[in-house]
Order: sequence, then C-alpha cells, then structure tokens
Amino acid sequence: MTPERISVVEKILGANDDVAARNRALLDAHGVHCVNVMASPGAGKTTLITHTALALGGRRRVGVIEGDVASNVDTDKVRALGLPAVQINTGGGCHLDAPQVRAALDQLPLDEMDLLFIENVGNLICPVGFDLGEHTRLAIASVPEGDDKPHKYPSIYSAVDVLVVTKADLLPYVPFDMDTFCRLVHSLNPDIAIFQVSCTTGAGMDAWIAWLLERATNGKS
Amino acid sequence: MTPERISVVEKILGANDDVAARNRALLDAHGVHCVNVMASPGAGKTTLITHTALALGGRRRVGVIEGDVASNVDTDKVRALGLPAVQINTGGGCHLDAPQVRAALDQLPLDEMDLLFIENVGNLICPVGFDLGEHTRLAIASVPEGDDKPHKYPSIYSAVDVLVVTKADLLPYVPFDMDTFCRLVHSLNPDIAIFQVSCTTGAGMDAWIAWLLERATNGKS
Repeated sequence: MTPERISVVEKILGANDDVAARNRALLDAHGVHCVNVMASPGAGKTTLITHTALALGGRRRVGVIEGDVASNVDTDKVRALGLPAVQINTGGGCHLDAPQVRAALDQLPLDEMDLLFIENVGNLICPVGFDLGEHTRLAIASVPEGDDKPHKYPSIYSAVDVLVVTKADLLPYVPFDMDTFCRLVHSLNPDIAIFQVSCTTGAGMDAWIAWLLERATNGKS
Repeated sequence: MTPERISVVEKILGANDDVAARNRALLDAHGVHCVNVMASPGAGKTTLITHTALALGGRRRVGVIEGDVASNVDTDKVRALGLPAVQINTGGGCHLDAPQVRAALDQLPLDEMDLLFIENVGNLICPVGFDLGEHTRLAIASVPEGDDKPHKYPSIYSAVDVLVVTKADLLPYVPFDMDTFCRLVHSLNPDIAIFQVSCTTGAGMDAWIAWLLERATNGKS
C-alpha cells in the first residue's frame, strides 16, 4: 500500500478502536463478558450460541447481537429461546464494526445480562481487523469445511483466543484429519484453546462450557 | 454513503470494469470460456473444479486461476492433475479483482485452453461486486452450510448464472430442505440454473457437465 492508503486505513481503524474501547468500558461497567463470534457462512455460529445458552442453563444470563448482510432469521431463532437479541443488518457490509455494536448495545438490557455473544457476519477474512469491544474472540470451524482452512485464512486463526470445531458428528462422512488440523492451528497460534463439539449429539459441549464459564469469570487472564 | 464515498467507489469499480472488459476480449480472442467460481470457504470450489475437469475428459482443455488470501495448496491440487494453474495470493484481500486476473492470464497458455475456471477467494459477500472478465458466474452452496443462506447473502444468489449445490451425499446427516432452498433461490433469481451434485459419489455430475458444455459452446446466450 502507498503511504496515503496506509494513513487512511489507520485512521478508519483508529476511529473504530476508540469506539470499541468505549464499548468495552460500557460492558465492564455492567459486568457483561462479551464474545465476538467469527466464522464462515454456515459454520454453525447461531447453533453454537443457542446451544451454549441452553447448556449454561441459569448459570449465566445470555444476550445476543446478530450481524448479517440481510434478514432477521438468526435473531428470530435466538428470541424464540427467550433471550434478548438485536439484529444488525449491514446491507452489503462484510463485517461488523464498533459503532454498529454501540448502537445495538443501547437496545439491550445490559443490567440483566452476564454474557453477550456478538455473531459477526459470516466471513473468515474481513471481521478479523475490527475490534468490537469484546473480551474474547471466538472462531468456529466446521468439519465439512475441510482441514486445510488455516493454510488459506491464517489471520483469523492467529487472532482468536478460542476455536470451536463444530459438526464433529459429520467426521465419519467427510475427509477431515483432526490431528493435522489442530497441529496447523497451533503452529499459527500456540496459545489458542481448541474444543471439538457436536451440537446435534451434545458431544464435547461440557468442556467448552467449562472453559467459557472460567473465562467469563476471570476476564482475559 | 455520502456523495464523496459513492464517487470513490464508482471510480474503483469503473477502473476494475475497464480491465475486466479487456480480460474478456483477450479470452474471446483465444476462444476461452471463463467461469468465475464464488462460494464460502470450504464449500468445495477446488473439488468441483477438479472433478469437473476430470469428468470433461478430453472434451474441453481446462485451465485454472486460484485466488486465496494465502498458500498454494489449491494450485498444487490442480497441477497434480496436469492442468495449467496460476495462484493469486491476495494478502489480506477478500476478493479477486480484474487487474489481478489480468496478471494471471499473462502466465497461462491461453491457446492451449478452452475453459478457464477462476476460483475466487472464499467469501459470499465481497467477490460479487467485481467483474473479472468472466462469461459465466457460478456460485457453490454446500449442503452442510444450511438452507437459509439465500436469506442472509441475497446478493450472490441474485448475481450468478448458475448454482451448484455440493456435498449432496451429506443430505441424510444434516438439516437441509432442498425444495425450500431452491424456492428461495428462484425467488431471488428466476433465471438461475441449479444443479445438485456429490463429487464423492459422482451423483448429479452428468447434468452439470452437460449444461456447462452447452454454455461454453454458446457463450452467454
């Protein structure tokens, strides 16, 4: 990039980061731990969020911000569980940004929540560069996407705190080598926590929920 | 968007379209039909391209341009079949553009090819806005992504000539209603051709290959 382009990009990201810091301060003031959920379209973001909320039972009060290019279908699914949810439609936008999240926060009952999931737009590339004010960055990789994705989209695997591998019940039917995949992810991000789950069978959910409870209690440490 | 932002965006897209028109003229001069392949990460773009090349046998000479944020893993797979292939790595870029394709065309033996597949970066949003000089726009939707994706990413389903639904062998194991999905796609794009295939079993490949041969012979009509 030319120096001029770098300067414009830095300005945009700087303005976003300022709002993200204010979002984080607002969430901290209300004692809400926020998780930014990023993945490909169809990786199972909404399903993991709803099944996580159900598995938590009453242990944490969950709210959700749903980011999509269009439609309210995910928000409808979340509200059907009785959870507070706000939809952000980005029009053509390929990621959420901090000001969009700020506007959504104003519509949520933060005093009645402990844990807020922000479901980002389905995209492995663009969301990574935008801090939303979250405390935890979660990527989801679904088994049928294949085990070579970290080669092709290294930034997201490098940038997140935790990775949940979903649709593990499909392992018998697709070529996916879990050891190779995890080795590849750890080569990009040695500190990442990885969980393998199936929301269909419930397998692996206990370990993921235990990690999330610990994380949400102790913040970023 | 402000008038200033609209003007900048129009200028960028206008410059891209000029190069795309020149790419198309170059391909026409060499008698090469070009297909721009767009889909989510892990939908099966490379697998459909390689299985299509194999199914075509000697009927069409195939070349491939591979677009990825990083790595050469897809180009390696294509070259292993003896097909000419060029890799474009976008760095952080979330889509291909016409100038990148122009540079790749200069490295391909266009006189020895009839059909060129451009595998775009895995992304349902950003690639749609950029004409690369192709004659046919192909979207791939994989069954495990779920049948609600047209609600959330309407632009890509509206913009393409043909849709191939891949991984149909997984239909018994995932919630995916093919009738609902096709009805939704047709409501966005009444003229779209839809094919359901499994590269694993070969089911559905004949109909897709027949359509492609007809299309590549008769151009855009």
